[in-house]
Amino acid sequence: MKATGIIVEYNPFHNGHLHHLQQTRIKTNNDIVIAVMSGNFLQRGEPALVDKWTRSKMAIASGVDLVIELPYAFATAQASDFAKGAIFLLDALKCSSFCFGSEEGSLEAFQQTYSLLSTKKDEYNTAIANYIKKGISYPKALNEAYNDISKASTDRLVDLSKPNNILGYHYVQAANLLNSNIKPETIQRVVANFHDDANNNETIASATGIRKLLFEGQKISEVNAFMPSPSLEGLKDWESIYFSFGSWEKFYPTLRIFILRSSKEKLAQIAEITEGMENAIWKAAKTHTNFESFMQQIKSKRFTWTRIQRMLTHIYTDFTWDQLRDIDLPTYIRPLSMNKKGQAYLQSIKKDLQLPLISRVAASKNDKQLQLDIKAADLYYLGLQSSFGQSMVGSDFRTAPIIQE
Amino acid sequence: MKATGIIVEYNPFHNGHLHHLQQTRIKTNNDIVIAVMSGNFLQRGEPALVDKWTRSKMAIASGVDLVIELPYAFATAQASDFAKGAIFLLDALKCSSFCFGSEEGSLEAFQQTYSLLSTKKDEYNTAIANYIKKGISYPKALNEAYNDISKASTDRLVDLSKPNNILGYHYVQAANLLNSNIKPETIQRVVANFHDDANNNETIASATGIRKLLFEGQKISEVNAFMPSPSLEGLKDWESIYFSFGSWEKFYPTLRIFILRSSKEKLAQIAEITEGMENAIWKAAKTHTNFESFMQQIKSKRFTWTRIQRMLTHIYTDFTWDQLRDIDLPTYIRPLSMNKKGQAYLQSIKKDLQLPLISRVAASKNDKQLQLDIKAADLYYLGLQSSFGQSMVGSDFRTAPIIQE
Repeated sequence: MKATGIIVEYNPFHNGHLHHLQQTRIKTNNDIVIAVMSGNFLQRGEPALVDKWTRSKMAIASGVDLVIELPYAFATAQASDFAKGAIFLLDALKCSSFCFGSEEGSLEAFQQTYSLLSTKKDEYNTAIANYIKKGISYPKALNEAYNDISKASTDRLVDLSKPNNILGYHYVQAANLLNSNIKPETIQRVVANFHDDANNNETIASATGIRKLLFEGQKISEVNAFMPSPSLEGLKDWESIYFSFGSWEKFYPTLRIFILRSSKEKLAQIAEITEGMENAIWKAAKTHTNFESFMQQIKSKRFTWTRIQRMLTHIYTDFTWDQLRDIDLPTYIRPLSMNKKGQAYLQSIKKDLQLPLISRVAASKNDKQLQLDIKAADLYYLGLQSSFGQSMVGSDFRTAPIIQE
Repeated sequence: MKATGIIVEYNPFHNGHLHHLQQTRIKTNNDIVIAVMSGNFLQRGEPALVDKWTRSKMAIASGVDLVIELPYAFATAQASDFAKGAIFLLDALKCSSFCFGSEEGSLEAFQQTYSLLSTKKDEYNTAIANYIKKGISYPKALNEAYNDISKASTDRLVDLSKPNNILGYHYVQAANLLNSNIKPETIQRVVANFHDDANNNETIASATGIRKLLFEGQKISEVNAFMPSPSLEGLKDWESIYFSFGSWEKFYPTLRIFILRSSKEKLAQIAEITEGMENAIWKAAKTHTNFESFMQQIKSKRFTWTRIQRMLTHIYTDFTWDQLRDIDLPTYIRPLSMNKKGQAYLQSIKKDLQLPLISRVAASKNDKQLQLDIKAADLYYLGLQSSFGQSMVGSDFRTAPIIQE
């Protein structure tokens, strides 16, 4: 059995994801698709719509064979660390390839771009530093520096202003830097614009568009057209139990009291918080009673919205710079859900694994990365502010990997 | 104008408090009664029923002339520090006397008890230490040691198993240790038993009994018989705005998420947490979704219920051993409410005050004790989990001392 890896958040799983999954099977001709998936907090620095167990079940029901958890420290990291953690795990799971969706669609372009930027690394970094000095955000500085460097090239290069191209570039880079044998593949995304509204296309909408519909208070059935039925059922079941979906608007009262209970000094120790952002965050929390107005006050040219949200995620989980600096690579493989094929594949590679395979967290409860996953999960359930959420604390200890079919 | 001080929590102000206030005027024959009152968290280690502003207004409406805030660090401390902070402030306010309610009722008994225990200090402390080694709680050890020492005495001594006698003893002790000129007085309490149910007497019930009625979901009018009308109106107004009263049951979801966001190591740094209680608290928070069952799990022979509640209060406000050790005596006088007489008295002593008189907190915002008061107030409002509570953050900056009549 040969396996291909994909890197996902599935927030929630929709028809675009299904397309990516199907194209991945066609492109790689592999038996097994393994998804490494973020837990309850995501790379854009926000709580997931529904928890990791629910999202992993949706994925299996729509054809993924095995879902493993990307540990919190990587799932909520900037693109390069996010990519490093994910590719490392897929490599550890003996995947022969991984396949990512991109606006670009041609792997050659990614490889040529990686080759160019590796060759001109110093020049690139100097240019980035100069742009950052001018007070613009890191992604914008990357983009400007990249434009400067790529001007003279005649190669086909990737447009690094597109979000999925950026992630893809980091996957290709991670695969190279990790010296892994895993082979990158890419397929073109159907939804070109990451922030599309959900009604632009009849059956495919971005996850952002779908979430927007859900948060605007539409009935769940309104998003019916955009997702396979197991996803829709999963969302319905979730809402009947929790009465709401995970979002910063929902979590803000809890985030706010964490900020106000803390001090500026303690906030400055939280991962990703730099350049006095602790003061802006502290001050805004004092006066703003909802997330939107809070963010409007602290947003800045220097930091992207998602970068600020990652700071807030780390405040929420009390994840510090010290803890972040202590982490290099994932230390375990933790399956969340699988089908029989995924289970058979895991069995077949089990004896060759270099990392512990965690099916019961109690047996590995001293692993620092795992403790973070458990804590993030517990705090996620409490942020939902429902009585069922209160009872979900410690569920990581009680939930075995789910085997479907 | 001569002033007498009283030390109060008024949680809420009831007919027993009114009696104490009236008897204090008669006994001391002074013009002014000044109450030093706890803020939003109380000496028994729990959130107040209603906030400090509301409680101070109730007090003025029922005849107190001036209410000043006992800073958080003293208001939530064990009896000796609570008493030290309160007596120090009343002395700083030039009170010629203070008058406390006690089960005992005779000041001579307090003085003779203080004299006995000062003389036999070493013997007393050795006996306490020996009893504590046997694993009983501190108050019980005090009591046993006291019984041993007082056996041979023929003086009239105070029964130190009664809660108001204990506090009274600490007031007398504080007045002595602070070398103040303030003269103690005591009057006998009408309600002898601190934990009486509210229906034992037609017009006087303990605050505990009244709170019990309120939390049992009785209409506020049920407690009508036990309190002056301004108190009743104050409670009604409060409930119409916040839809609930402050209590650990109400605050528990917030306390719980603070515990789960923390770590055992960080909990051990919280004030009053000793002897591995961080482990018990952490473990209980993992599984218990309501306060009563949480407390049932962590209660221990070694610590009284109130001592454990003080630990929880300090977790709630993130008040650490380091902060506690840094505090000796109150650093300011902060009026909450007053009538014209109280205002005139304050004017008359203003130029002789040794401590800053705070009417606007912004002007003194670097005072560490004051920062604690502000933080405790903000976190109290958020613990109420009402949208109005969300808007009360920062109210210490917006609220000037209230002048009634």
